[in-house]
Amino acid sequence: MINRTHNNQIKSWVEVDKKSDFPIQNLPYGIFSTATQSKRVGVAIGDQVLDLEAVAKLGHFDSIINDHSVFSQDTLNNFITLGKQIHSAIRECIFDLLSENNPLIQAENVLFDYSTVTMHLPIKIGDYTDFYSSEEHATNVGVMFRGKDNALLPNWKQMPVGYHGRSSSIVVSGTDIYRPKGQKMPPDAETPIYGASSRMDIELEMGFVVGKSTALGETVKVDAAEDYIFGLLLFNDWSARDIQKWEYVPLGPFLGKNFGSTVSPWIVTLEALAPFRVESPVQKPTPLPYLQSTGKHTFDINLEVGLTPKDGNKTIISRSNYKYLYWNMCQQLAHQTVNGCNINVGDVCASGTISGPTKNSFGSLLELSWNGKTPIVLEDGQERSFLEDYDSISLKGYCDNGSLRIGFGEANGMLLPSK
Amino acid sequence: MINRTHNNQIKSWVEVDKKSDFPIQNLPYGIFSTATQSKRVGVAIGDQVLDLEAVAKLGHFDSIINDHSVFSQDTLNNFITLGKQIHSAIRECIFDLLSENNPLIQAENVLFDYSTVTMHLPIKIGDYTDFYSSEEHATNVGVMFRGKDNALLPNWKQMPVGYHGRSSSIVVSGTDIYRPKGQKMPPDAETPIYGASSRMDIELEMGFVVGKSTALGETVKVDAAEDYIFGLLLFNDWSARDIQKWEYVPLGPFLGKNFGSTVSPWIVTLEALAPFRVESPVQKPTPLPYLQSTGKHTFDINLEVGLTPKDGNKTIISRSNYKYLYWNMCQQLAHQTVNGCNINVGDVCASGTISGPTKNSFGSLLELSWNGKTPIVLEDGQERSFLEDYDSISLKGYCDNGSLRIGFGEANGMLLPSK
Repeated sequence: MINRTHNNQIKSWVEVDKKSDFPIQNLPYGIFSTATQSKRVGVAIGDQVLDLEAVAKLGHFDSIINDHSVFSQDTLNNFITLGKQIHSAIRECIFDLLSENNPLIQAENVLFDYSTVTMHLPIKIGDYTDFYSSEEHATNVGVMFRGKDNALLPNWKQMPVGYHGRSSSIVVSGTDIYRPKGQKMPPDAETPIYGASSRMDIELEMGFVVGKSTALGETVKVDAAEDYIFGLLLFNDWSARDIQKWEYVPLGPFLGKNFGSTVSPWIVTLEALAPFRVESPVQKPTPLPYLQSTGKHTFDINLEVGLTPKDGNKTIISRSNYKYLYWNMCQQLAHQTVNGCNINVGDVCASGTISGPTKNSFGSLLELSWNGKTPIVLEDGQERSFLEDYDSISLKGYCDNGSLRIGFGEANGMLLPSK
Repeated sequence: MINRTHNNQIKSWVEVDKKSDFPIQNLPYGIFSTATQSKRVGVAIGDQVLDLEAVAKLGHFDSIINDHSVFSQDTLNNFITLGKQIHSAIRECIFDLLSENNPLIQAENVLFDYSTVTMHLPIKIGDYTDFYSSEEHATNVGVMFRGKDNALLPNWKQMPVGYHGRSSSIVVSGTDIYRPKGQKMPPDAETPIYGASSRMDIELEMGFVVGKSTALGETVKVDAAEDYIFGLLLFNDWSARDIQKWEYVPLGPFLGKNFGSTVSPWIVTLEALAPFRVESPVQKPTPLPYLQSTGKHTFDINLEVGLTPKDGNKTIISRSNYKYLYWNMCQQLAHQTVNGCNINVGDVCASGTISGPTKNSFGSLLELSWNGKTPIVLEDGQERSFLEDYDSISLKGYCDNGSLRIGFGEANGMLLPSK
């Protein structure tokens, strides 16, 4: 639903660059701390962070909620639990407070320069699911490992295939990742070897954050699924392809994935994304009724992956889009709960690698280098099939319709040598 | 290490039946509440629960810890975080307080009849891993689905294969489980159907509870793994075989498992289990060095599965033993962390179905009925290939060397019709 908080004629009294991800129409939530102040809820505006604890203490949310403690927590979970009606009212209030000509908080000490704060993992994640919902990605991987004729497995177009990942190792942007060690089975070897992964990869994904809990045995209908989704974030699912390949049959990926996943510090709400709704790709065959989704339940979000080698410059190695996903977030959540599996506020469901139709839109090095056969070339001439130590990866995401840009910031991480 | 708390000559002033799982040498931890008192830490003794909050308030732990609040929590996590040295001292203190002839707390109001209290999930579980560590189980499943010659997959004897499960749906004994709905692909059908699972199964497992956290990038060596393990509990991994079969390739089990898992309310510490240490089966081929485990790192724990149909009597359908596991808990934890995956206090690593060498020791109906080909017969003559609505399942586990019995109580649950 488009409302006055989407009016792109309104500017903020905070200076916001035209290319900023964070105009007054975005207002994404995160958790930050400063040199002198502990973790609290913040909202991004331009290159500033608005301190919601401070705004609450000034009384500006008093007509919406009595208890300000949700803004003084080290995660967003309690704030998210308040529900969409409260979120919407808080959004309108912040929108008004930040609108040009509104003097109410302009003289107050409620803004911090982004470069001076520390951002933290915004949510306490109970359970994390990783879906596999990009047809292009699943097809690419299938072609590489099973050939063109058997690329997509029989269940893939019938359900959003997914698996449980590791919550403990999900970290916020800026956290370094150590190259994992483990078992690998070299080609033509008879016994596995132990060592550091030599096929380190990334996966360009987005995740949605669960905004409403259910009880065990309860299902979320596909048409009601958005009521249970708070917002979206960027998600880099670091992967060790050699470890993954040797371990994953028959129970799925485990140590090839669970050494680290990187998320953006900001969660962009569905309300902020409303102007960028689009329909998902047409689904053939038609899925079972519990998965049938009509209307615009996905978003036109431009995505890009940057790779910066040690002492080098960034090369954009992929440009993709969230809208390419075959299964949308509502279908993912309906599937996750069809068996009565309970969900909790703060759970994350990631999309799976988001690859587009062209080679430069593939969301992993595995696909970009076609399993190492065609290494990509960086701007300085270096080649990459997989990651080298000290390579930094930066995911970015933003919506842009020419007059409004709503972005996600970045999800960054550097690959360090094995510990 | 055997110490005075294992002396089976010592009796408690609390009456303890000879066949009780909970003599003074056990002292397992759980979380209970009463009609008038909120959740707190308790210890089982005979058919009574010792209220540790109350004992702490009387000052009996004052020489060990200053802060009593760990006993007034709704999970054991903070208590577990205190570490093994404290746990050992608390155990000795409780052992002394409950020893016959010790009058200190006999007149105090610190005991509750087990039948009058409510037991709760004892821990907040961050991440849950399910291993697949019984050779007999993996072989049985392999023979059924791939034939004798390819029963064990190539990686199985090289590593403790495992996958991430769902934490949110782990429930305490006594919680009913709803028969899940979902997608199934009937034999010879061309498209999947939606409906309730008709192949409902259980899995006889045990889980260990992580007792010490690690940082991302850190590994736990196999020889040090026990320092990171607080204790063990019973674990029933309810499974919907038809849903699982259709979904699990290539990313592993998901909705076929995540609708519910049942644990016992009591966690038995490694210290209590010390008299029952045994060596694991000989491993051929020898695993990689990071998985090589010497000494007695598993336990002789008798396990049984009881099935009680609606309005009927219980039939013991399986008798197995924890010691059958090919991969022990130390190897599981070393593998879980070999890539730097971080673990947190309260995480659970389940063993996978524990099947023994004979048919009556198989740990799932899938194996007991050999995929439905040879239904088991209950005491009243009813047959079962898979579970019927209102069937109740009871897992039990106990060590018994003739002079000492250390048990786990039960992990019970009834299967209700689909919601």
